[in-house]
Amino acid sequence: MTTWETYLQTNQERYKNELIEFLSIPSISSLPEYKNDVRKAAEWVSARIQQTGMEDVQIFETGGHPVVFGQWLHAGDKPTVMIYGHFDTQPVDPIDLWTQPPFEPIIKDDCVYARGASDDKGNMLAPILALEALLANGKGLPVNVKCFFEGQEEIGSPQLPEFIASHSDLLACDMVVSADGGQWAEDQPQLILGLRGLCAIDVDVQAAKTDLHSGAYGGTFHNPIHALVSILDSMRGNDGKILIEGFYDDVQTVSDAERSLLNKITYSEEDYKKEMGVAELYGEPDYSTYERNWVRPTLDINGIWGGFQGTGIKTVIPSLAHAKISCRLVPDQKPKKIIRLLRAHIEKHIPKGVNVSISDIPGSANPYMIPLDHPANKAAEAILRELYGKETYYARMGATIPACDIFLKSLNAYTVIFAFSLRDENIHALDEFFRLSNFRRAQKGYCMLLERLAVTAQ
Amino acid sequence: MTTWETYLQTNQERYKNELIEFLSIPSISSLPEYKNDVRKAAEWVSARIQQTGMEDVQIFETGGHPVVFGQWLHAGDKPTVMIYGHFDTQPVDPIDLWTQPPFEPIIKDDCVYARGASDDKGNMLAPILALEALLANGKGLPVNVKCFFEGQEEIGSPQLPEFIASHSDLLACDMVVSADGGQWAEDQPQLILGLRGLCAIDVDVQAAKTDLHSGAYGGTFHNPIHALVSILDSMRGNDGKILIEGFYDDVQTVSDAERSLLNKITYSEEDYKKEMGVAELYGEPDYSTYERNWVRPTLDINGIWGGFQGTGIKTVIPSLAHAKISCRLVPDQKPKKIIRLLRAHIEKHIPKGVNVSISDIPGSANPYMIPLDHPANKAAEAILRELYGKETYYARMGATIPACDIFLKSLNAYTVIFAFSLRDENIHALDEFFRLSNFRRAQKGYCMLLERLAVTAQ
Repeated sequence: MTTWETYLQTNQERYKNELIEFLSIPSISSLPEYKNDVRKAAEWVSARIQQTGMEDVQIFETGGHPVVFGQWLHAGDKPTVMIYGHFDTQPVDPIDLWTQPPFEPIIKDDCVYARGASDDKGNMLAPILALEALLANGKGLPVNVKCFFEGQEEIGSPQLPEFIASHSDLLACDMVVSADGGQWAEDQPQLILGLRGLCAIDVDVQAAKTDLHSGAYGGTFHNPIHALVSILDSMRGNDGKILIEGFYDDVQTVSDAERSLLNKITYSEEDYKKEMGVAELYGEPDYSTYERNWVRPTLDINGIWGGFQGTGIKTVIPSLAHAKISCRLVPDQKPKKIIRLLRAHIEKHIPKGVNVSISDIPGSANPYMIPLDHPANKAAEAILRELYGKETYYARMGATIPACDIFLKSLNAYTVIFAFSLRDENIHALDEFFRLSNFRRAQKGYCMLLERLAVTAQ
Repeated sequence: MTTWETYLQTNQERYKNELIEFLSIPSISSLPEYKNDVRKAAEWVSARIQQTGMEDVQIFETGGHPVVFGQWLHAGDKPTVMIYGHFDTQPVDPIDLWTQPPFEPIIKDDCVYARGASDDKGNMLAPILALEALLANGKGLPVNVKCFFEGQEEIGSPQLPEFIASHSDLLACDMVVSADGGQWAEDQPQLILGLRGLCAIDVDVQAAKTDLHSGAYGGTFHNPIHALVSILDSMRGNDGKILIEGFYDDVQTVSDAERSLLNKITYSEEDYKKEMGVAELYGEPDYSTYERNWVRPTLDINGIWGGFQGTGIKTVIPSLAHAKISCRLVPDQKPKKIIRLLRAHIEKHIPKGVNVSISDIPGSANPYMIPLDHPANKAAEAILRELYGKETYYARMGATIPACDIFLKSLNAYTVIFAFSLRDENIHALDEFFRLSNFRRAQKGYCMLLERLAVTAQ
């Protein structure tokens, strides 16, 4: 009888090719023209789960992109663990600047290069392969397992709250393990105690009803770019402090216990700057770099445009100017309230001579925290120590996984993040890649974690 | 023997068709892909001038787009009048919003719709047709005439200063008449006493060397859009006052004589607002609408861009953000000095954590004034009174014709603007058109003006 260790070793070459096949599907969730490719990825995932021996495998419609479900519930009174991940990817613009085409994966130095390699296809395929390895010995899984993979994490999982709420029996579980997330470094594991939430708005400014000649009209009509710039500049100080009234009201201070854990993390500010080619870091005074990223909220203009963007001169006073603004939120900030505050601030700062319209961008998410002593955290901590031979860091993440809060609210299940991306893998950027060493480590890690949860997480 | 009046009447149908042919050439000077079309327009103009009986017709290279020259110098000791205009056009973006394709001219309600119809092809063709009508009677022209038409007015005539300086003998003249410009209204003539100058810069801001995930990095690196917005917002107050140190130092105050002329102009502020669909006009306190447009300088952001411009959310902190800024200048402001002041201001306002680069955009121009009692003004005033049956307004123009100052500096010749565009003809915008009634009036006006100059402008 083969052990899962042997099974994984024997099948590594096939798994690598399967990952390449999975990465070849351009499942960009934000762009309508890739809608069928997101479905193709769902079908690929569904077929792959079926192949492991999981049962009741099914693609569900959500109103947006589909989700894939499968389960194996023959472990009696053992806990039920739901594995989460996503098969959609970010867009690839500017595609011309990629070293290789983003959906033609290549292997180089034991890394696979492709859009979605690290976020999240490499990570989410690993537990599927682990399930196959565990089921291959014919004795079944150590715990009850549900698989739940979605196709729109990169656009903020807009249909997920409703889908999960209306399928709470199907998805009922004791805990969720997220195969979306990462580790601190190649030789340093981490457990994530909290994630930031997210909300976003579009701001559109109109002055005259058409574009105007800046000679013929300059000095008499407002320029919507100037109006927009003045509104935006009023929202955040040059020191990084957000100037929206009430913005910080609900921000929790970090507990002493957590602070002492966070402070055990060492890092080099010089390396961090060098990595991104800047002379100075930036942000709110009186907070360390990681505090600003983890336990403090942010406001960022993600896009701005208006008027002429070509070469040379076009002396236009445009009719319209636009900006996209998003905020990362920390406990206990709520997206709805923050959007209300943003609207109130903007409305107070609209100069005369322009009209401003503000619209919510779908995909907001609550911030999320998991208790340090949650059984899933304890089990994961033990496995990470074994995998890395090192104490784990307890950290937070500046990013958002909307599903975590949704699982907690609808299923009363906490999510532990057990995934293996690293910060340098260019997620959401050019030349994204994933280390195959971590692809293998993740497969092994999931086998170990499920076995451990059978013992410790009763 | 036919008079020019009869000749013009007889040939109006042909002239209209020639205008349509001229307007069909997409001679956009700012876009490299239309370079050959600008040349095609030059060849069309050159052939058309040749056809009138003008002599020494020639296309000259300038290093940029070509110019077209022709002359008729058999009027003895009569003055030499140079006629100026341009055969290049503005771009047509967003082309999808035009009612008709911009280079497929159509006639509707005695107006011709096409890019360049009003600015400047309709205007510049008129004097050519007038020359033909005058020469048709076999007695020659009443004054010596040179034609000088250029192909890059819309990009600020960058090679014109050098070309004119190095061809000052060829272009020597007593005065210039510009067929680029307009009248106050369909039933109200104007003479232009001054034009604003122009200068422009590109501002590029870089923060981190790549685009960053706003979750993973938000709160730790500066966002170049925020940095740009803070720089731009420091340049102009919400009341329209320009906050660049020294910006107003060289601004001339308007003489009492000119002010009393300008104040004779009546207009409805309500109509002006309604025309552009705004609730409030905008600009420097303590100046009237037309003062702000004519005798006060401006600073406008003509374009801004950075980050994500698509639908929905992309939580990026971009690496780069960009803006284009231009200033309209009034006597005695100088483009070089203003650009120096802009650079100094921006450099003083660069926040920590970003790099800013500033580059001059070619195509700057000096502001320009013509003395009220210049003989060309007097002649033009008499003809306009005859054409419209009304006293002329003396106004200034907020726009720029770079050639005017260049003619003055290099040829010691003032330029009188004698052209027939109207403000509502959508120049530089969608659905540009030109009134054929003014196309006919311009032809007649040029015949009358040249005859008048033979008598009064010795």
